[in-house]
Amino acid sequence: MSKLVPPHGGKGLTICLLEGKDREAELKKAAKLVKIEISAQAKGDLIMMGIGGFSPLTGFMTKDDWKSVCEKLTLADGTFWPVPVMLSCSADDAHKIKYGDEIALERKGEIYATMQVTEKFPLTEAEKKWECEKVYKGEGADSQGDFMAVALKDHPGVQMVMARKEFCLAGPVKVLSEGEYPEKYKGIYIRPAELRAMMEKKGWSKVAALQLRNPMHRSHEFLAKIAVEVCDGVVIHSLIGNLKPGDIPAEVRVKCIDTLVEKYFVKDHVIQAGYPLDMRYAGPREALLHATFRQNYGVNNMLIGRDHAGVGDFYGLFEAQTIFDKIPYATEEAKCGVEPGKALLCQPMKIDWTFYCFKCDGMASLRTCPHGKDDRVVLSGTKLRKMLSEGGEIPDHFGRNEVLDILREYYSGLTEKVEIKMQGAAAGTAMK
Amino acid sequence: MSKLVPPHGGKGLTICLLEGKDREAELKKAAKLVKIEISAQAKGDLIMMGIGGFSPLTGFMTKDDWKSVCEKLTLADGTFWPVPVMLSCSADDAHKIKYGDEIALERKGEIYATMQVTEKFPLTEAEKKWECEKVYKGEGADSQGDFMAVALKDHPGVQMVMARKEFCLAGPVKVLSEGEYPEKYKGIYIRPAELRAMMEKKGWSKVAALQLRNPMHRSHEFLAKIAVEVCDGVVIHSLIGNLKPGDIPAEVRVKCIDTLVEKYFVKDHVIQAGYPLDMRYAGPREALLHATFRQNYGVNNMLIGRDHAGVGDFYGLFEAQTIFDKIPYATEEAKCGVEPGKALLCQPMKIDWTFYCFKCDGMASLRTCPHGKDDRVVLSGTKLRKMLSEGGEIPDHFGRNEVLDILREYYSGLTEKVEIKMQGAAAGTAMK
Repeated sequence: MSKLVPPHGGKGLTICLLEGKDREAELKKAAKLVKIEISAQAKGDLIMMGIGGFSPLTGFMTKDDWKSVCEKLTLADGTFWPVPVMLSCSADDAHKIKYGDEIALERKGEIYATMQVTEKFPLTEAEKKWECEKVYKGEGADSQGDFMAVALKDHPGVQMVMARKEFCLAGPVKVLSEGEYPEKYKGIYIRPAELRAMMEKKGWSKVAALQLRNPMHRSHEFLAKIAVEVCDGVVIHSLIGNLKPGDIPAEVRVKCIDTLVEKYFVKDHVIQAGYPLDMRYAGPREALLHATFRQNYGVNNMLIGRDHAGVGDFYGLFEAQTIFDKIPYATEEAKCGVEPGKALLCQPMKIDWTFYCFKCDGMASLRTCPHGKDDRVVLSGTKLRKMLSEGGEIPDHFGRNEVLDILREYYSGLTEKVEIKMQGAAAGTAMK
Repeated sequence: MSKLVPPHGGKGLTICLLEGKDREAELKKAAKLVKIEISAQAKGDLIMMGIGGFSPLTGFMTKDDWKSVCEKLTLADGTFWPVPVMLSCSADDAHKIKYGDEIALERKGEIYATMQVTEKFPLTEAEKKWECEKVYKGEGADSQGDFMAVALKDHPGVQMVMARKEFCLAGPVKVLSEGEYPEKYKGIYIRPAELRAMMEKKGWSKVAALQLRNPMHRSHEFLAKIAVEVCDGVVIHSLIGNLKPGDIPAEVRVKCIDTLVEKYFVKDHVIQAGYPLDMRYAGPREALLHATFRQNYGVNNMLIGRDHAGVGDFYGLFEAQTIFDKIPYATEEAKCGVEPGKALLCQPMKIDWTFYCFKCDGMASLRTCPHGKDDRVVLSGTKLRKMLSEGGEIPDHFGRNEVLDILREYYSGLTEKVEIKMQGAAAGTAMK
């Protein structure tokens, strides 16, 4: 029997992906169905349902589930779930679809799934705003004045909710494509069942995941290594879906991690993998989502650092940690009483603000280092990006040189592209 | 309600210490009772029973308990207990004592307890040897040839068992003294109930203990700091009972820890304390004992490093870690089924061999550092002792200078004493 944590929801991995002949037959059928163009976010959500990453979800949410998730962080049946997973369509499309219809879900000409529509409901602007306030508004937001006014301008997650079309469709899906991921991220894009098999082979049972959407710096390495000291191993689990503009693309990040793993980790205790979701930037709620789908990947400890899944100043630096104390979450004691599967089993591994400290003579955090600001090398990701793209000197101990070299190369490439673009524009020819 | 782990055994803290008028009355009575001179080890055991550190034990073990502990690591009633806790007396004394008699337990003229004798039994040389083989012989010992022959010469724990007198006495105790500890280690000697109160005040629930019987070097600091990163706090918990000759006395160790805590720890997450037991050097079994009584102190994670509680080459370097996988030990899952109190709840926090690594640019362990021997600063305690006492240069990054200074001072004092002794001897006067 596997020693890994069971998938969330008590039903094993709920795999919605068809393969081989089943897939071919379904694709043939799909060609004749009404087609709905889906968002990038919905594509990622679909692939996760396909591979069991969103177990126990097997389709987009009903209005009852949506309301319950927003309000109570559980599906209508009481199973823990922190963030709505919605499929929207225009009023025009909605009028073409009847209850029980099968439809095809496509994006940019590729069919990602078929779906049997079991529910069709409008979500008004007011309801979407309510969702944003419930899901995306942090605890400190009351002092932020008009949250929605600011968020509409600056919060990419809120913008995605508000950009959803008038109607939502719910119902079970059959997933027909994993998009570009298996090809583009070969060896990195690993399905939950595959990751579980790898970890079982290694004999792991206590496993931590490090969520990454930025290049892996020493702070991230430090988090991962704390986990390795106290767990069987760590999964460095990168988001390989879409980010906001200006963030560093997954290929570059994966290359950085490759190098770090190669030069600074013990192979027996680390796995690099990626998952196909887009960022929602929902801060605390997204941290819970990260823990929830990590459980499906066989992970029972989710590293949560500073401002996990946050954006701008929308969340308190440690709100994504404290929210774990407030959820219907299966602590060791509670587990005996809780209905199996309904509560989250993946626990947070909360780490404070980390940095290199000269007096400590190594990496430390605010929990372990009593020294002063001047003893520490602190550099925000934003500052680092600026230094790297402007070719500035990076302070000692901040990063690993091998990683910084990759980032310098990436940024110099960006600069070249911009220069070529400008030259082209100057010469009166448009670059594409 | 306290969020700390409950004491071992399911009966709360079983406190056998009398205080105030009760103690005075009992002391008066004790003066008239038959007196048994007890060993240093038994004195420590008694004080632990006094303050609830050995909960649920309220007296020395019966023959059934002794046999069950040696064979099955449980008391006769099934409660986990890893090491015999025995009171011996000579055959002459035994003949003076009848079942049901009350006796007084004294050492060097001080009465430590009274005891009602409920059982009196001989343990033959063969039985004591059997105990040693069961409790003190490590897993690798089969290849050690004649374990007992080697152990009788070099194993201080085995020597203590074999030095016990012919008879054992069992029965409940009333403890009347905590010896020199409250006075000599003021602020460090902290009873389980007091430590629990301190931790409750700090709001701790996940607490690790670091066992120390050597000066605290960077490796120990590293263990403690890993714990601080993932727990609410760490208790640096020194043995202040007796060690083998040549080990560094508790006063000096406490001073080192004071300095480290002052200069290198964040006060909110650390408590320094001491416990009054003597070392048994039982390696893996003693690691289990350390976890068991730590649970009584409110600790639910016991740091177990390399060769925990070992002596010489008697145990495999990580035997004290793997033994935790083999005991009737309450894992999260099992807890729901196990009879409350009988299983150990304090979990091991197993840490691999640690060192400073130049390439890692900080402290690391064999789990996190992939580099070579030449990149690491590795120094055994024995080598360090030699360097310090001979005034040698300590390699960079090995220790904290503030701590090394204290040790240098201690060793130079030793040298002076030896010199004075030698001068005295040369002048024909004996030093005392």
